[in-house]
Amino acid sequence: MRITIQQAAQRLLSQDRILILSHKSPDGDTLGSAYALLYALYAQNKTAQVICGDPIPPQFAYLSDGEKNVSFEPSFIVAVDVASRELLGKALSDYALRVDLCIDHHRMNEGYAKETLVDDQAAAACELLYAVIREMDVPITGRIASCLYTGIATDSGCFKYPNTTARTHQIAADLIEAGADYVRINRELFDTKSRARIEIEKQVLDTLSFAENGRIAWACITQEMLHNTGAQESELEGLAALPRMIEGVEVGITLREQQDGKYKISVRTAQKADAAAICAVFGGGGHLRAAGCRTACPYEEAVEKLLAAAKKELE
Amino acid sequence: MRITIQQAAQRLLSQDRILILSHKSPDGDTLGSAYALLYALYAQNKTAQVICGDPIPPQFAYLSDGEKNVSFEPSFIVAVDVASRELLGKALSDYALRVDLCIDHHRMNEGYAKETLVDDQAAAACELLYAVIREMDVPITGRIASCLYTGIATDSGCFKYPNTTARTHQIAADLIEAGADYVRINRELFDTKSRARIEIEKQVLDTLSFAENGRIAWACITQEMLHNTGAQESELEGLAALPRMIEGVEVGITLREQQDGKYKISVRTAQKADAAAICAVFGGGGHLRAAGCRTACPYEEAVEKLLAAAKKELE
Repeated sequence: MRITIQQAAQRLLSQDRILILSHKSPDGDTLGSAYALLYALYAQNKTAQVICGDPIPPQFAYLSDGEKNVSFEPSFIVAVDVASRELLGKALSDYALRVDLCIDHHRMNEGYAKETLVDDQAAAACELLYAVIREMDVPITGRIASCLYTGIATDSGCFKYPNTTARTHQIAADLIEAGADYVRINRELFDTKSRARIEIEKQVLDTLSFAENGRIAWACITQEMLHNTGAQESELEGLAALPRMIEGVEVGITLREQQDGKYKISVRTAQKADAAAICAVFGGGGHLRAAGCRTACPYEEAVEKLLAAAKKELE
Repeated sequence: MRITIQQAAQRLLSQDRILILSHKSPDGDTLGSAYALLYALYAQNKTAQVICGDPIPPQFAYLSDGEKNVSFEPSFIVAVDVASRELLGKALSDYALRVDLCIDHHRMNEGYAKETLVDDQAAAACELLYAVIREMDVPITGRIASCLYTGIATDSGCFKYPNTTARTHQIAADLIEAGADYVRINRELFDTKSRARIEIEKQVLDTLSFAENGRIAWACITQEMLHNTGAQESELEGLAALPRMIEGVEVGITLREQQDGKYKISVRTAQKADAAAICAVFGGGGHLRAAGCRTACPYEEAVEKLLAAAKKELE
């Protein structure tokens, strides 16, 4: 059932022993949402905890700085920025069937929770968390502001992606005034690259291919590149956006080879094509301009199917 | 003499036949400021014109879409985002000695105009133009909003540089609500790279050198790279920021070879060093985190002097 911001705030205020779930392969938005909510619940003297099926990437370690060590049997489970049960991953599958509240901004949210607050006009789940926390009457501390800023900045590409709205900027202004450590966060997330990242970026750019007069571009990230550059998982953020950045490209695709030889595919689109529709060819989905899927197909076959789906979208 | 926003607005409202000057090698902020002011003056039925010593780069061509073809003897001259007379360039040197009003956000503004409105806390001159235009009681049309958004977004690195403040975001929110064409502007300015740009970026990264345990990094952009990639002047925007983006780098320097064999140098700093102080070694200047200078020294000698100045700043 869909609920409002006010109802979501009421649910949280009326509960205790609250478990907060982030999605697997966590990003700044799911973690920023989870920790902002955690600190807001602490402010209401609630017992609460954040869990995630995968480790927190090092660049987001600061989000959990104020976390308390607790152990409890949850009486209320909240998932943040988690569009489907599957995205909780195996480690959290026990909780997947009993999520009480989901707060999310994905158009394709599957409605798996008892109650869902979803707004696909929000650039980030953190925009919704900002509204919920204000509705809970919790003061936005510097710590909470830094968590919310992290989610908003990462999901909006630091305010450059088309999901950014006037409201996104208004919230960012409020968070900066509330003490978000935004200069450091921006520098670490958007203005710093490791030498390994620079090296792998050059190698990925060397694999660029084009079709349909340059309207479709794709690139590959192989296990070999990871090995010879020493780049870590957390250093690959944003590589998926590279092919779409090239002038004239309307559909940009990256195929990332996994350790088991399968491919994780990211699709980014400019103005015309529906990225989620292209990813449906391998049972994936996501947003209109950014979507993903996975396949066990060999590389050439995967590219062929993706190109066919992309061409259909461009027609 | 320094004047306030209110006084600047009064001067503009009380004058007619107004000439607006942009600095040479124009960027989004000087052009966005100039055209926003032009359209605001049109709204007050003034005769006005923008001039610049160099051509408008193609990615900023949209700014002048609403320009009228006029010819007049100016009775009032305004310079926007122009820190010194010298930055007007040779083509505008006749006007350089008789600037009535300068609106600028550079700490080092030389006070060459009869009256100067300067605020070095503003991320962009366009932040000041926004305040002046509102004070002039001119409605912010979509066209004016697009000009102001362009300047703010380019000078703040699309809100990721440390000069961004809560006010920067508040103004961005207002401009988006006023109809700024921000999705297209962001895509063209921050999310699109030509193939030539991608190629030259790879070549520049190949020249990276490090000193002081990776705290200083420098790179070179040669005339040969421009020739073999076919990259145009307007495709080099942001290359100056590359060395500073590397993890651990506190001073990032680029040396760009000019057609006459001289070097144009850009310095970017992280938290400690003063970029303007480093550029003073060759008589240059700018902001605390971003500055520039030029030299006729040979490459090795230029690097040596810059490194010495950078080391002194890091001490």
